[in-house]
Amino acid sequence: MSVKKSKLRVIPLGGLGEIGKNITLLEYGGDIILIDCGVAFPEDDMLGIDLVIPDFAYVIKNADKVRGLFLTHGHEDHIGSIPYLLHEINVPIYGTKLTLGLIENKLREHNIKSDAHCVSQGQTVRAGCFGVEFIRTTHSIADSVAFAIHTPVGCVIHSGDFKIDHTPIHGEPTDLQRFAELGKKGVLLFMCESTNVEQKGYTMSECTVGTIFEEIFEQSENQRIIVATFSSNIHRIQQVINSAHKHRRKVAIIGRSMINTVKTAIELGYMQIPSDILIDISEIKNYSAHELTIITTGSQGEPMAALSRMAVSDHRQVEITSTDKIIVSASPIPGNEKTISKVINELMKRGADVLYDGLKEVHVSGHAKQEEIKLMHALVRPQYLMPVHGEYRHLKHHKSLAMSMGMPKDNIFILNIGDVLEINEQGARAATTVPAGQVLVDGLGVGDVGNIVLRDRRHLSQDGLMIVVVGLDRASGEVISGPDIISRGFVYVREAEDLLDEARDVVRGTLESCGSAEWSYMKSSIKEDLREFLWHKTKRSPMILPIIMEV
Amino acid sequence: MSVKKSKLRVIPLGGLGEIGKNITLLEYGGDIILIDCGVAFPEDDMLGIDLVIPDFAYVIKNADKVRGLFLTHGHEDHIGSIPYLLHEINVPIYGTKLTLGLIENKLREHNIKSDAHCVSQGQTVRAGCFGVEFIRTTHSIADSVAFAIHTPVGCVIHSGDFKIDHTPIHGEPTDLQRFAELGKKGVLLFMCESTNVEQKGYTMSECTVGTIFEEIFEQSENQRIIVATFSSNIHRIQQVINSAHKHRRKVAIIGRSMINTVKTAIELGYMQIPSDILIDISEIKNYSAHELTIITTGSQGEPMAALSRMAVSDHRQVEITSTDKIIVSASPIPGNEKTISKVINELMKRGADVLYDGLKEVHVSGHAKQEEIKLMHALVRPQYLMPVHGEYRHLKHHKSLAMSMGMPKDNIFILNIGDVLEINEQGARAATTVPAGQVLVDGLGVGDVGNIVLRDRRHLSQDGLMIVVVGLDRASGEVISGPDIISRGFVYVREAEDLLDEARDVVRGTLESCGSAEWSYMKSSIKEDLREFLWHKTKRSPMILPIIMEV
Repeated sequence: MSVKKSKLRVIPLGGLGEIGKNITLLEYGGDIILIDCGVAFPEDDMLGIDLVIPDFAYVIKNADKVRGLFLTHGHEDHIGSIPYLLHEINVPIYGTKLTLGLIENKLREHNIKSDAHCVSQGQTVRAGCFGVEFIRTTHSIADSVAFAIHTPVGCVIHSGDFKIDHTPIHGEPTDLQRFAELGKKGVLLFMCESTNVEQKGYTMSECTVGTIFEEIFEQSENQRIIVATFSSNIHRIQQVINSAHKHRRKVAIIGRSMINTVKTAIELGYMQIPSDILIDISEIKNYSAHELTIITTGSQGEPMAALSRMAVSDHRQVEITSTDKIIVSASPIPGNEKTISKVINELMKRGADVLYDGLKEVHVSGHAKQEEIKLMHALVRPQYLMPVHGEYRHLKHHKSLAMSMGMPKDNIFILNIGDVLEINEQGARAATTVPAGQVLVDGLGVGDVGNIVLRDRRHLSQDGLMIVVVGLDRASGEVISGPDIISRGFVYVREAEDLLDEARDVVRGTLESCGSAEWSYMKSSIKEDLREFLWHKTKRSPMILPIIMEV
Repeated sequence: MSVKKSKLRVIPLGGLGEIGKNITLLEYGGDIILIDCGVAFPEDDMLGIDLVIPDFAYVIKNADKVRGLFLTHGHEDHIGSIPYLLHEINVPIYGTKLTLGLIENKLREHNIKSDAHCVSQGQTVRAGCFGVEFIRTTHSIADSVAFAIHTPVGCVIHSGDFKIDHTPIHGEPTDLQRFAELGKKGVLLFMCESTNVEQKGYTMSECTVGTIFEEIFEQSENQRIIVATFSSNIHRIQQVINSAHKHRRKVAIIGRSMINTVKTAIELGYMQIPSDILIDISEIKNYSAHELTIITTGSQGEPMAALSRMAVSDHRQVEITSTDKIIVSASPIPGNEKTISKVINELMKRGADVLYDGLKEVHVSGHAKQEEIKLMHALVRPQYLMPVHGEYRHLKHHKSLAMSMGMPKDNIFILNIGDVLEINEQGARAATTVPAGQVLVDGLGVGDVGNIVLRDRRHLSQDGLMIVVVGLDRASGEVISGPDIISRGFVYVREAEDLLDEARDVVRGTLESCGSAEWSYMKSSIKEDLREFLWHKTKRSPMILPIIMEV
């Protein structure tokens, strides 16, 4: 056991599709620390699921070892699972000011108290044998950090989500000098994000979007301007407010999540808001189009968000007309392309001018592209690399990129969720695995929807269901009521009366041939005969549920 | 009525999301012609639907007037609904050789005989008062045409799907001179496709992909090469075969649709296949990696296609290994991004090199971008424009593009499906509408799945269902059996036994309070009480189906 204890264990414990996202675990001897604790969003075939959280089994099993949860930034995929974790174990939380501010709202909703500690960029927190140093980065949310984790076997750097923005809107740029200094001293392992690793070049600075906003405001003298963006992108929101201020427009903010974020950001000093510029959405009727800017949620086409509701004329306060210029300042998260496109179509049908990414540079990514990732590698010069935050294809590209810079192939580890990288000064190897994976959240239920339930939902979604109800005489076993057939989601009943009549005949036939057989046999015979009949007639396979009652 | 007869009526009769796609109708006096007759693919919320075809109500009502169906090219969204149309009415079909060849297979499957006429590019077909001239274009399938429809009120040009490829792989380029000549004489109305109208510049020639293929083949000496592309893109397939031939590789083709298309294309002289190069997939075991090229379907990540099956090691003849170089020579159709990405991840996990659009220029579009569309406008110089083939946002951009070239705003008509454009030498106006829309095909059922069925499927897909079975005494109305509860897709039953027990108690309570009320009242009370209970407990709303039997 002494060998095991002398090794650092690094475990990408979460992520759905994207490996090493949501939560990472570091363990050495009797100490564990966690990095981030976020949610993933359900995939298309996870019908009815609201959220996906990491499986905390390993964390719960080792609860007494956990010295702290360290947060890189305040995006949902990095903080969204905290209430679920705290429901299971108590753990001190360390984050920067804005990150903790955003968590506070969330915990209040869940009625959970936390042991939260605010850390400044540049500070180091001791957690068991680990020293966790907060290093300033830039990202699409303010106050993001990377971690240099000083462990008994060497320094591990976790990049968090980052881009290298030399001209950020608020605060200082990425602390490249510190990365260089650590690299010079020697970095054992670099865990680096891979989101944009397939994209050549550099991600543009956030401030380039401000220039475009300015141009658009210039050209929209008589129009009302509506900007949709991510509710957490306070730099983007700040830039809209700056342009609005310059053009003497008031600003109304719509969408609960955006209002909360902006409120927190203002309170904590992350936004500079000219006095009197913000108005409540109920006040917009007191101003003409050219005096107004509206900032709203819904840039991903989320059906319940304000922009989508405006698009279908279902918003109480905002009616879209031909005097509106709408900027969708976001790019679609993969899978949302069609939903957003529908919203854009509807807004245009109402006469609005709509600008979006691809037509006009109204968005930049928050993630590093190839040249930035290379730069980070060049500064950090790690002994080992674990590409994280990406689908397998991204991690594989990240590996090639590192190899193109001279890193030996065998020093790069692409792990699966739950895989353990054991590492010390002498070497590193992917050793074993721990329980890991996803837990599905549906309504209030955490983990009570599994594969069987999802399989049933998928089956029901494709061809609906058919219920067959039969009453049998208690004594003789004869059919004395039914078979009755109820269908839902299978076929439009009025047009298919003949089909349902025939289906009843099929069941009658089955019952006759079954005689006084066991009910279970009767049920499976009904299912089988009916399935065959319906497939032959319709090429569909509804779920068939026979119900037999003694009468 | 004489006024009506003297006007041409142009109706974009089909399209799902994309307006004017799938089918267009032209009517003058007693004559109707149809342009194209394709299918659309179901949207995400059309659960369980296989295909979407146009509503033929107006065509059927006017069956005696229909003089012909004219086909621009052989893609499914232009020919896929022909069997469904011919099932309703008999109509002569006019198309180029390859287009008709592709239809033939389809009709044979449906056991339908057709009255098909092969037309050469450059020829004109008389159909009632219409003269339909076939004009050569280039597209991602061979033998595509635009139509110049000579009508009593003037010339109408329908572009079909096109790009302007000056160096096509087979056959002649787009007949720009004829478009110019018609434009010079005067074109009344131009119906022009809008797919890529948001994209700046020119679409690259198909032959540029061949150059890239050649480069990849050069660099893959010891690898097996697998190329996935659209089964109808015979030029792309030809180019793969050309490179394979040059590098002395055999070619095996996988996927029923691709095998059929290639067979037809060879028979009709649209492909040049070196002798002995094609082998059956069962023969690949007789060759080493560097002697093989496999061309396959599945470039959109379709779960049943060959590439997806290889990706999950579920293909009988092809096992993916680290000696494979795989080229996904296609771009994702919007909505397929995630599915394709999953296939790419799985292929890479098996060690294969995978190249795809974005990493390498292994695909070009078949549709004209802005400069090509402008060029076509400059040649045709129509009096009126109807942008077609696009979502509303694309049609709107097409309108702006035409206006930027000097076309008066009022001469441009963005119509909805079923809208009628009435037009003659004196003027044009969007006049009235005819029945139009979509008909859903699910298995063998055409149109028997409507909004109610889809709503039920959506409901079932989100939270599953709960069936409540109660037996009442015939005479007294007392509950003598049940309530029993069956659930599917709602919650994992073993973990939720308590919840289901409580649910039974709720129903018992409801039944008590109902006394000997009407069954319908009893049922709705059960639904209501149970819904409220379940929502409170789980924040979910399964479909609730109460079944009451006399016992």
